[in-house]
Amino acid sequence: MPKGSWPVGWPADQLNALIQLALAEDGTSADVTSEAVVEPDLRAKAVLLAKEPGVIAGLPVADRVFVSVDPDLHWDALVTDGVHVTTVPSRLGTVEGSARSILRAERVALNFLQHLSGIATLTWQAVSKAPGVEVLDTRKTTPGLRWLERYAVRTGGGRNHRFGLGDGVLIKDNHVRAAGGIRSAVLRARECAPFGLRIEVECTTLAEVSDALEAGAEIILLDNMPTALLAQAVQLIGPRARTEASGGINLDTIAEVARTGVTSLSMGSLTHSARALDVSLEIEEMG
Amino acid sequence: MPKGSWPVGWPADQLNALIQLALAEDGTSADVTSEAVVEPDLRAKAVLLAKEPGVIAGLPVADRVFVSVDPDLHWDALVTDGVHVTTVPSRLGTVEGSARSILRAERVALNFLQHLSGIATLTWQAVSKAPGVEVLDTRKTTPGLRWLERYAVRTGGGRNHRFGLGDGVLIKDNHVRAAGGIRSAVLRARECAPFGLRIEVECTTLAEVSDALEAGAEIILLDNMPTALLAQAVQLIGPRARTEASGGINLDTIAEVARTGVTSLSMGSLTHSARALDVSLEIEEMG
Amino acid sequence: MPKGSWPVGWPADQLNALIQLALAEDGTSADVTSEAVVEPDLRAKAVLLAKEPGVIAGLPVADRVFVSVDPDLHWDALVTDGVHVTTVPSRLGTVEGSARSILRAERVALNFLQHLSGIATLTWQAVSKAPGVEVLDTRKTTPGLRWLERYAVRTGGGRNHRFGLGDGVLIKDNHVRAAGGIRSAVLRARECAPFGLRIEVECTTLAEVSDALEAGAEIILLDNMPTALLAQAVQLIGPRARTEASGGINLDTIAEVARTGVTSLSMGSLTHSARALDVSLEIEEMG
Amino acid sequence: MPKGSWPVGWPADQLNALIQLALAEDGTSADVTSEAVVEPDLRAKAVLLAKEPGVIAGLPVADRVFVSVDPDLHWDALVTDGVHVTTVPSRLGTVEGSARSILRAERVALNFLQHLSGIATLTWQAVSKAPGVEVLDTRKTTPGLRWLERYAVRTGGGRNHRFGLGDGVLIKDNHVRAAGGIRSAVLRARECAPFGLRIEVECTTLAEVSDALEAGAEIILLDNMPTALLAQAVQLIGPRARTEASGGINLDTIAEVARTGVTSLSMGSLTHSARALDVSLEIEEMG
Amino acid sequence: MPKGSWPVGWPADQLNALIQLALAEDGTSADVTSEAVVEPDLRAKAVLLAKEPGVIAGLPVADRVFVSVDPDLHWDALVTDGVHVTTVPSRLGTVEGSARSILRAERVALNFLQHLSGIATLTWQAVSKAPGVEVLDTRKTTPGLRWLERYAVRTGGGRNHRFGLGDGVLIKDNHVRAAGGIRSAVLRARECAPFGLRIEVECTTLAEVSDALEAGAEIILLDNMPTALLAQAVQLIGPRARTEASGGINLDTIAEVARTGVTSLSMGSLTHSARALDVSLEIEEMG
Amino acid sequence: MPKGSWPVGWPADQLNALIQLALAEDGTSADVTSEAVVEPDLRAKAVLLAKEPGVIAGLPVADRVFVSVDPDLHWDALVTDGVHVTTVPSRLGTVEGSARSILRAERVALNFLQHLSGIATLTWQAVSKAPGVEVLDTRKTTPGLRWLERYAVRTGGGRNHRFGLGDGVLIKDNHVRAAGGIRSAVLRARECAPFGLRIEVECTTLAEVSDALEAGAEIILLDNMPTALLAQAVQLIGPRARTEASGGINLDTIAEVARTGVTSLSMGSLTHSARALDVSLEIEEMG
Repeated sequence: MPKGSWPVGWPADQLNALIQLALAEDGTSADVTSEAVVEPDLRAKAVLLAKEPGVIAGLPVADRVFVSVDPDLHWDALVTDGVHVTTVPSRLGTVEGSARSILRAERVALNFLQHLSGIATLTWQAVSKAPGVEVLDTRKTTPGLRWLERYAVRTGGGRNHRFGLGDGVLIKDNHVRAAGGIRSAVLRARECAPFGLRIEVECTTLAEVSDALEAGAEIILLDNMPTALLAQAVQLIGPRARTEASGGINLDTIAEVARTGVTSLSMGSLTHSARALDVSLEIEEMG
Repeated sequence: MPKGSWPVGWPADQLNALIQLALAEDGTSADVTSEAVVEPDLRAKAVLLAKEPGVIAGLPVADRVFVSVDPDLHWDALVTDGVHVTTVPSRLGTVEGSARSILRAERVALNFLQHLSGIATLTWQAVSKAPGVEVLDTRKTTPGLRWLERYAVRTGGGRNHRFGLGDGVLIKDNHVRAAGGIRSAVLRARECAPFGLRIEVECTTLAEVSDALEAGAEIILLDNMPTALLAQAVQLIGPRARTEASGGINLDTIAEVARTGVTSLSMGSLTHSARALDVSLEIEEMG
Repeated sequence: MPKGSWPVGWPADQLNALIQLALAEDGTSADVTSEAVVEPDLRAKAVLLAKEPGVIAGLPVADRVFVSVDPDLHWDALVTDGVHVTTVPSRLGTVEGSARSILRAERVALNFLQHLSGIATLTWQAVSKAPGVEVLDTRKTTPGLRWLERYAVRTGGGRNHRFGLGDGVLIKDNHVRAAGGIRSAVLRARECAPFGLRIEVECTTLAEVSDALEAGAEIILLDNMPTALLAQAVQLIGPRARTEASGGINLDTIAEVARTGVTSLSMGSLTHSARALDVSLEIEEMG
Repeated sequence: MPKGSWPVGWPADQLNALIQLALAEDGTSADVTSEAVVEPDLRAKAVLLAKEPGVIAGLPVADRVFVSVDPDLHWDALVTDGVHVTTVPSRLGTVEGSARSILRAERVALNFLQHLSGIATLTWQAVSKAPGVEVLDTRKTTPGLRWLERYAVRTGGGRNHRFGLGDGVLIKDNHVRAAGGIRSAVLRARECAPFGLRIEVECTTLAEVSDALEAGAEIILLDNMPTALLAQAVQLIGPRARTEASGGINLDTIAEVARTGVTSLSMGSLTHSARALDVSLEIEEMG
Repeated sequence: MPKGSWPVGWPADQLNALIQLALAEDGTSADVTSEAVVEPDLRAKAVLLAKEPGVIAGLPVADRVFVSVDPDLHWDALVTDGVHVTTVPSRLGTVEGSARSILRAERVALNFLQHLSGIATLTWQAVSKAPGVEVLDTRKTTPGLRWLERYAVRTGGGRNHRFGLGDGVLIKDNHVRAAGGIRSAVLRARECAPFGLRIEVECTTLAEVSDALEAGAEIILLDNMPTALLAQAVQLIGPRARTEASGGINLDTIAEVARTGVTSLSMGSLTHSARALDVSLEIEEMG
Repeated sequence: MPKGSWPVGWPADQLNALIQLALAEDGTSADVTSEAVVEPDLRAKAVLLAKEPGVIAGLPVADRVFVSVDPDLHWDALVTDGVHVTTVPSRLGTVEGSARSILRAERVALNFLQHLSGIATLTWQAVSKAPGVEVLDTRKTTPGLRWLERYAVRTGGGRNHRFGLGDGVLIKDNHVRAAGGIRSAVLRARECAPFGLRIEVECTTLAEVSDALEAGAEIILLDNMPTALLAQAVQLIGPRARTEASGGINLDTIAEVARTGVTSLSMGSLTHSARALDVSLEIEEMG
């Protein structure tokens, strides 16, 4: 990978635009403190430190933030995304160059890194408690950050559900109501939806599960079911369809849900309520 | 306010762009499920419900999301931003129009509303525990959402610190190190920084506080001080400068910090670690 | 639908941007001829005429082009997209307002309408010759116009294949080669690809078809097979998977392909080689 | 030319934006098939092959598509734009690097190349049948692609008419009607239009031609005239003005039109109805 | 014209983008003074006043700035662009609505209006001193403002030269040098340049003028010639070509240049050195 | 600094966008003259020459314009921004490469350089006449160019006032009126405005000055005061606040204003009425 480029497959232009947006709203080109206080030719070397245990995600973004602020900043990664930090503080990488540039870039780089690492860490915690079950994200993401947040989920060991409304058929209660029943909804979807997509149906009772199976649903989303009911539904479905548990699952309840035998479970909190991981930048040399 | 416009003073174009970005990444124009399952002329009326107590922020954004998806959707707010919801579920507003359009817009509208209400709620909880002290946000915001997150902080009763690097002089440890001392840093800032800005200095010891005061600092940021030391610093400073406590303050520690007599305190967690508030959309009528 | 808005579900912002791009490259704001020759307050009424038989697609785009050039232009549609014009010339709609504005907008409105109607017409011709078989488009679209071209295909009676690389799993020869065999490729896809997507595999021989079926492929793309072989493949597959014929299918060969019993067939020419339909604008009144 | 830059004089930023748009709509950053099936470190070498005879246009665009998807892809052109391919398959260039990246970029690169080569080929066919006559394009281009399509016309040996409404005065029937006669329209244009532009007038009868000449028209567009009438008009005009034949000219009729002695002729079909040239990408090495 | 739209023919999207850029760089959405000091529901009525004599240009831009800041602001124009203000202060229009909104919009609206009126005024002064001669602008415009500055020149009574490099052939000294002589340059241009464009040649001596005429130049740009020489050149050229005087012409020298009989003259200072016209906003009512 | 990058701290993306805008409006990709007349492989070396004395600002912009047009153009600066040119013509730098590319880029590069150098020169003239007093710019800048114009002011030796409405509290007459008095306005601002900002108040009489001081204003803007009154105000204020003279200050009056003892003075004309500095490009070698 050439210096300063994105990993292959990342949406480079969109991410560069997001970084520019973040730098602009942070007033990076108008850092009045550094311009008044720090000599323009002062050099520094700083280290990014994880201050609490967790799974790191977003180092390539931090790298790109540094280079966007100043193409002469030099970033050396000491770990790669996905590393599980257990001892703290833990050195993630160093950045070297103009002191002013490092101070300008610091906050935005950390904002990305802390947010994404928070998501990866929470995902990893969930995955650890649900062996053998796929832990899925949802569409409950922060506006503008969906690609990155889904990446953070994968980095933490989770699996992505559909990206958006266009790459998955998911028939929910309101669709069923609109179509006049599960059977009717599933039949319409089988006939009209893009033929590359499997049909997933949200169910809240065993009766609905039966209807969905009969109509030919290929995935059954079991929504907000008590664990006992969930287990019954899984039994009922057997190998005829994949299953996805959903609804208020958290680190306290996930193990119990997983033991019901579902194929997968999804958690909105992975992306909408993850606590930022504590990462900071410290200047080690200056002069 | 004409139907479908933003409140005066909101950065309409930026926010419209953010909404478009969110709608695009959610695939709103390719909702394969609704297109297959829901009749194009089916109408519906839905309600936004707060499912847990908290402070609501972001209703104008939700309104704009609905209208962006379909100019014929009609939103009626039942409460306004800043309302403190105490009984649940609590009706926040209704949206009426094409069923397909409502289903298309639902997730993005909720993503904004849940995120911003989460921040407002956490801020309100902090403010409640720190009577007489200004609760400030920081630059630790989600990339792309700074304006909205700062708005959510104000909605929750907090006060905004500087927007970015350009509208405040904040001399931190690294600036001091670069300048060769607090005195030198403050003097440079007084001479060179835009003359409309007060000089704020980060201190971690009483000695630093003394230096900063002597050099003419107008605000003293007291960083990561134990409460006892914080109280001493506040005493030392007296009326000579404003004070801002900072560093790891949370809902458990905030009351103790507030009792030290600081003018203000700042919490990064307001924006980087707020849990989303549980808000959902339910369809009440369809046909 | 309010005057001047897009049909619900159309990606309004993207389409507006495309129109602006087209108007800009046509120099609409610098129409030196009209400015020199036509009085600014001259009014006109013009009609859009189909000059050859075909299926019309793109009238809402033409409408939006007129309004983008001059919000005071008034468009009255006389038919709607999807109409099959058989007698020519056939009146499609009228536009009324400033003569200068109509002349400015004419070419761009026609460019969209002729292109999309050409695609809809070719699709309709194909569909007519393949009763009972789904006629699919491909990703062989004009850069920047994919949404509109897919819409034109639907308008002509065709069905859309996947929008892009993200909403469908299609294992082609190079994927098979990379994975070391059909079986291995299908297994990997079943394990790793988003679980909402069915697995489609491109095959060129009966042996490959057998491999794909055994590995669990849910759709078999039969690529460039002679008709006889195609029929054999369809026999072999039976109800175990859907089938898609592909490769060089045109109006001369489509009926024969359709008779093989395939579920669906795809034609790149629908979008990459459709001839523009002859549509023109004539001024009926001026003064 | 540095690796990865555009030829001098090409509108680099616009073209990069168009490529990004095409990659985005193709879902290049979400290639679920390659990500599931192809190992991330697998390397490949592929060749672009012309599968039918024609004139190639767009190789620099294909190059830029590859580099936009992955800066590490290495493109080697074996021919340059404008080459006339006569034996097929004919190797146009090779691309080497990550197998995933090549598969991601393939379709978009081909979409550009096939479209532009189709236009260049049709132009070349027209030019070949009209020796000594300039073959011109029109404003009947695909929205968003005007620069590239005009380039393809030049590559095929054609000449460009005006780019848009701002760089040419062309008085058509509606302008004449609005101005109250050819004489009045031409006089106004001579007085008011930018003085760097010649005056061109569309005529359909010999009487109109006489009027236009007398009023001082510098170019006469002879619209939809039967060949005999066209020849008479050319005679009448003599050296007093340049002539442009227009209206429904195609490969069957062009030779006859050319023999009338017109200076130039224009064909909308060059850009709005050219069939894509068959070009494909084949992987030659993988491992 | 509907409230809040642009005059027909103005490049609405570009101008809206420019206004947004101006509002963004002025921090309109963060007017800390008004938010702290002015009540949100305070209403005001203000008037735009010309404080010195001149020609007004840009009122539609000011109108759009007000509406962009707050769709509820109501602008009433009392004069129209092109008016020649002779008594001061002179009321140009009023704006009514939220006091905060008016204060937010004031500076940006004035910045446009003062700049464009300054150009219109200088142009008018030049035109007044050169009766019977076309006063042309040049490409020496402020980056990003070319359309508006050219409009201001027309508003002041001037005429526009070419918009950019694409809508005019102007052979300057360096082109001549590159082509190896005037004759060669003109011949190449006649052969290759878009046939809708006349050929203009820059000359500095009578010999060059003769060469240009013989080669068929249709416009002769007489660059930096002393007045006597200019008169000789005009004589020499006679009716064979149009003439354009250029080079350091200002309000002191323009009359003399005009008397030489040139068809037209161009002045870079119209757009690059016009002094802003003094226009201000005064609040007349508040409450 | 790597070839072709911006100085650290400049808003690279915004400036690149502005350059692209300027190149687009100049039709750089459609230079019909050079394409017709200049051989594509002709090379040239040109020099930028200051033709009148002044302070140079904008060389990095010119450099970036050249590289944006053609990455192979090679710019060598012979001086740096801020140099005070006293002998003319004075060589500022050379550019070498394709002759066509240099001719394409020339005008846009000069437009930036002449405009910014004009501002720097005027600022320098003002600063020279006001020893010991800060010469400030205002928000009266050209839309879209604020960052660059403020840079030019600094380059000429001036100091920047606030960038926009968000980074300074400036209470003007209308704010006072809205708040019901100076005292009330200042108190509100002290309570509500971001605590990092000092309070500046515009005064026109000594009574207002007294009110402002008593209310705690930290900077007093003395607006449009006759010199004698200005001196009295400065006396009255003494060390209690900083002072800024404002209103119609020009090169004729600045010395007198400066002698009143004000801390600083601001001049709108620095940015809205500076005459362009005469800079030109001459080709020295070609072949």
